Amino acid sequence: MDFKEVINNRRAVNFFDPQKPVSDKILKEIIETAAKAPSSFNLQPWNLIVLKEPQEKMRLQKLAWDQPKVSQAPIVLIVLADRNGWQPGHPIVEKNFNEMVTSGTMTAEQHQWFLDACRNLYGTDEKKRQAFANKNAGFFAMALMLAAKSLGLDSHPMDGFDHDDVRREFNIPDNYWIPLLLAVGYFSKDKTLLPAKWRKAYDEIVVNFN
Amino acid sequence: MDFKEVINNRRAVNFFDPQKPVSDKILKEIIETAAKAPSSFNLQPWNLIVLKEPQEKMRLQKLAWDQPKVSQAPIVLIVLADRNGWQPGHPIVEKNFNEMVTSGTMTAEQHQWFLDACRNLYGTDEKKRQAFANKNAGFFAMALMLAAKSLGLDSHPMDGFDHDDVRREFNIPDNYWIPLLLAVGYFSKDKTLLPAKWRKAYDEIVVNFN
Repeated sequence: MDFKEVINNRRAVNFFDPQKPVSDKILKEIIETAAKAPSSFNLQPWNLIVLKEPQEKMRLQKLAWDQPKVSQAPIVLIVLADRNGWQPGHPIVEKNFNEMVTSGTMTAEQHQWFLDACRNLYGTDEKKRQAFANKNAGFFAMALMLAAKSLGLDSHPMDGFDHDDVRREFNIPDNYWIPLLLAVGYFSKDKTLLPAKWRKAYDEIVVNFN
Repeated sequence: MDFKEVINNRRAVNFFDPQKPVSDKILKEIIETAAKAPSSFNLQPWNLIVLKEPQEKMRLQKLAWDQPKVSQAPIVLIVLADRNGWQPGHPIVEKNFNEMVTSGTMTAEQHQWFLDACRNLYGTDEKKRQAFANKNAGFFAMALMLAAKSLGLDSHPMDGFDHDDVRREFNIPDNYWIPLLLAVGYFSKDKTLLPAKWRKAYDEIVVNFN
């Protein structure tokens, strides 16, 4: 599908067709396509919990303002942003460094420099940790929504949930923030989409403080 | 351009063609296309400072590890995440509410409910403010990179800068976090792209803590 068509037609849909499940193959394709998103030092501080079973989705729905789409969507993703994804010893941090040495973009002697840069940019205080994890997870989640649309599926990003209750219910470790839940499936074609919401125009986005 | 082609070929390029400026028309198209990104309650808590003048770009480059691409790229965007973008009285918050009333998705009586929901989800502590602003700015920035690519341009998201020095140098108010700088232009075709970096596979992304 053409990029313009994908980005113009992606909508947060409220109704998913319960008769059209999402195959494991399509889900994998969506996730691995979205994983092409860039990230800080390629650290990719994102993970997903995939919920498919009705009982699991109902456990989540109860903590998400009881929104019916949580259980009606064939798939709900709990998007996780790893606030420790810059730490020395983290498997992805070390894998990343080794891959850079292998590809010749860093030398083995730069290991400490790399760890120090990651700590200084992302780890010296809570604000930086939170910005690092959520910005990068934002890249990934945007790519997930577009990848789904490009394959004919729709999605709905949701903020209406109790963050700490969801963490407890699904035993999510404290290093993760949950930036959103993402319902994924096929739009229920007997429903009507609301008109697209307004967006800020160029002059409302571009600012200058000089 | 096909979506797959856009997402597979988007790369963080280090070299921009200094002979190929980015027209105002193309820049506006990139920004307004990216503005189709979804956001929490459609609050769109993102802004951009657009730097084009060599002197302005050099002021930024000095605070960004002196990376030559900051001044070589025809355009550098300072991406801003508005940590106050949920507050009562914020022009976009109130515009948003009025638009929902006009479109019939909320009633005028729900004003206080809407403000309370925004505060509870995004404003009761520093972690929530930071997550709200950076996640949504992440959606927008990802869409900017893909929109640029779809129009034949390249970009480079940059974290290597002194956050607070950039804020001071460009008089950026304290409500903004700067999640990234984004260089935008045309790839310098006499240069060679490095091979694409590795990405986590499906099994490294999907987790389960049961």
